[in-house]
Amino acid sequence: MNLEIDSSGSVDSTPGFSAAGIACGIKASGLPDLAALVADVPCAAAGVFTTNRLQAAPVRFCKDVLAGEAANVRAVVVNSGNANACTGEQGERDVRCTSELAREVFALGRAKALVISTGIIGEQLPMEKLESGLKELGGLLGDGDGGSGKKFARAIMTTDTVEKNLALTFELGGVTVTIGAAAKGSGMIHPNMATMLAFFTTDAALSPLALALALRRVTGRSFNMISVDGDQSPNDSVFLLANGKSGAPKIENESSPGFERFCEALERAAILMAKKIAADGEGATKLVEIEVSGAASGRDAARVARSVANSPLVKTAVFGKDPNWGRIVSAVGYSGVDVDPDSVNIYFGDLPAFLAGEPAATSAAELAAPLEGDEVLIRIELGMGDEHCRFWTCDMTYDYIRINADYHT
Amino acid sequence: MNLEIDSSGSVDSTPGFSAAGIACGIKASGLPDLAALVADVPCAAAGVFTTNRLQAAPVRFCKDVLAGEAANVRAVVVNSGNANACTGEQGERDVRCTSELAREVFALGRAKALVISTGIIGEQLPMEKLESGLKELGGLLGDGDGGSGKKFARAIMTTDTVEKNLALTFELGGVTVTIGAAAKGSGMIHPNMATMLAFFTTDAALSPLALALALRRVTGRSFNMISVDGDQSPNDSVFLLANGKSGAPKIENESSPGFERFCEALERAAILMAKKIAADGEGATKLVEIEVSGAASGRDAARVARSVANSPLVKTAVFGKDPNWGRIVSAVGYSGVDVDPDSVNIYFGDLPAFLAGEPAATSAAELAAPLEGDEVLIRIELGMGDEHCRFWTCDMTYDYIRINADYHT
Repeated sequence: MNLEIDSSGSVDSTPGFSAAGIACGIKASGLPDLAALVADVPCAAAGVFTTNRLQAAPVRFCKDVLAGEAANVRAVVVNSGNANACTGEQGERDVRCTSELAREVFALGRAKALVISTGIIGEQLPMEKLESGLKELGGLLGDGDGGSGKKFARAIMTTDTVEKNLALTFELGGVTVTIGAAAKGSGMIHPNMATMLAFFTTDAALSPLALALALRRVTGRSFNMISVDGDQSPNDSVFLLANGKSGAPKIENESSPGFERFCEALERAAILMAKKIAADGEGATKLVEIEVSGAASGRDAARVARSVANSPLVKTAVFGKDPNWGRIVSAVGYSGVDVDPDSVNIYFGDLPAFLAGEPAATSAAELAAPLEGDEVLIRIELGMGDEHCRFWTCDMTYDYIRINADYHT
Repeated sequence: MNLEIDSSGSVDSTPGFSAAGIACGIKASGLPDLAALVADVPCAAAGVFTTNRLQAAPVRFCKDVLAGEAANVRAVVVNSGNANACTGEQGERDVRCTSELAREVFALGRAKALVISTGIIGEQLPMEKLESGLKELGGLLGDGDGGSGKKFARAIMTTDTVEKNLALTFELGGVTVTIGAAAKGSGMIHPNMATMLAFFTTDAALSPLALALALRRVTGRSFNMISVDGDQSPNDSVFLLANGKSGAPKIENESSPGFERFCEALERAAILMAKKIAADGEGATKLVEIEVSGAASGRDAARVARSVANSPLVKTAVFGKDPNWGRIVSAVGYSGVDVDPDSVNIYFGDLPAFLAGEPAATSAAELAAPLEGDEVLIRIELGMGDEHCRFWTCDMTYDYIRINADYHT
């Protein structure tokens, strides 16, 4: 599939969407902390949310909106610096109030504004700052500033070290369609800076049902396939808004022409964004790709990959450039998946480390070479079937400890 | 129950057992790496082993021996520095050969010698060094050296910083009974230094069945309730040998008089040993006790405790003396257990941090005080039922990264 990728694009690269990001004083640091994405017309919208039993107030709010008004969304307001999680009834009131304010300030008419938050757990939102911030955003939207998509991406950051955004275009039903994206996340799930958010816009035309199906499928192969520390936040959310402006034929459901093609493009965008999050994992020096093949099921493949990706011993070994395949075999062994170690092969890049129950002939010095770069590929062949998956994580370093031990101080 | 604890006791504090530990050259460092425990008479023996699908050759060997000869064990040989895991058929041959050598050197007659290993994965055992080491051990056993139990505990260490041993005595059926113990483990499951081992001896009289039942029950409340990094090794093993020399009435099964009492004493010994392992976790500065109550089932309680104990974010917060209860609530939320965050309470020691879905009134400065000491108690009330558990872990520090990133270099 031919795709044109614009690495400086963002959620407002899609025709019909504008974005802005500012500092409104939620963060003591004075860094940007409030962003808005607004569509010219009501959009179809879909969301995928954390499975944590603890769900932040804005997550519960967005689920409610999408349950009833998934064809009638025009805006997403995002604040960083405060997660609005563990905030009781006050938190519920604040998210509803923010949404109403946004409808007013952005003149959304009868359409809805979604609201999502990321940041510290257990503190109430500073609503006065948020209100004046929303008014400021209203004046900035659609001012034609070429950098506003990047400002959106920057205002949603917490411990992220770089903003994460891109856009891509592809052909669908004879016309050019855009997908714009922005995301944040550094501890994969870092409950304190609670945590991973991603936003996608498109001018393809999809029903809310088709949009939800596409987003769920793609999330399972991208954002659900990354991990920084195995923690999972009460705020994790992925949003997709479609305004249909491209003129491409409308995709009503899974069997509509164009559905598979749209999913393929969305998956490309989502995997690129997911890798940006894994690579910017707290304290990370390396992006680690784990490729599992020969699994009896896709679920088995993912369990094995997740077990290896979450092993502190594997992650510290990668940081130490130590081709410690024993730790990988062991993490495969305790993944809970039915495997026979005597049929497992492990490779660093293309170099075999462990073949069918015994150490391979590759020397430790040779095995260490693929660990020198910024990206490390670990391949695991299970020998149990034909299913496979790819999973991304990062190494675990002194800086991970520093960031997470010193955060409050 | 009245128990007399001897903190300098070890596996040879039990009448009828002798122990020794030496350096035989398996470790390049020259530190002690070979130990033996030998009984005067054939013992009943029980073992609990790793559930990792990857099982080291000695684990498979011991399971075989205990399946057929659980009433006929007289020795346990332990080496550190080499796990004999991922070593293929050569590894299988070496463990059988070591056991036969031990029977010869220690003159065990028709009784069996168990063999277990801990250390680097994927290297073959240096059998010549092991053979001459065994002969040296043979000359040291029973020499009446008061320090030989401690030498046993020292020779089984890998990244441990202190040897772990104790003995306790209690009254059973009118006579004094002893339980002696030694253990090692530093990465809870640290597959590279694969990993946790514990050895118990007793002069109580138990059938192999009763012994196995007691060990399984007690392990579930002690060694299965600790975690350093959530990894699980292919070598984890707990052994219990009983020679019956105390003269206490024989315990045939779970309903025999004395079974509950013996389990209670064994549990005390096992929890003390398990806490020693958690406190000596790699790089640890603090022992963390997690007390979960109000669970719908014991399994739920353990899942919640394990989820909190394995969260890198909770562990780094404890290292940073940061009373970050949001990370704890979040780890409860993603534990997979059905909980309602609005009914959860979290305490540091006796100080409430989070009550029924909202932050407690305790100030951050007050909450930080219980984090100053060497031992930190986190209490979690789930409000779902009456079941409870205790779990032990340690903080995660810069030294954890150093130890595990630099291990090979």
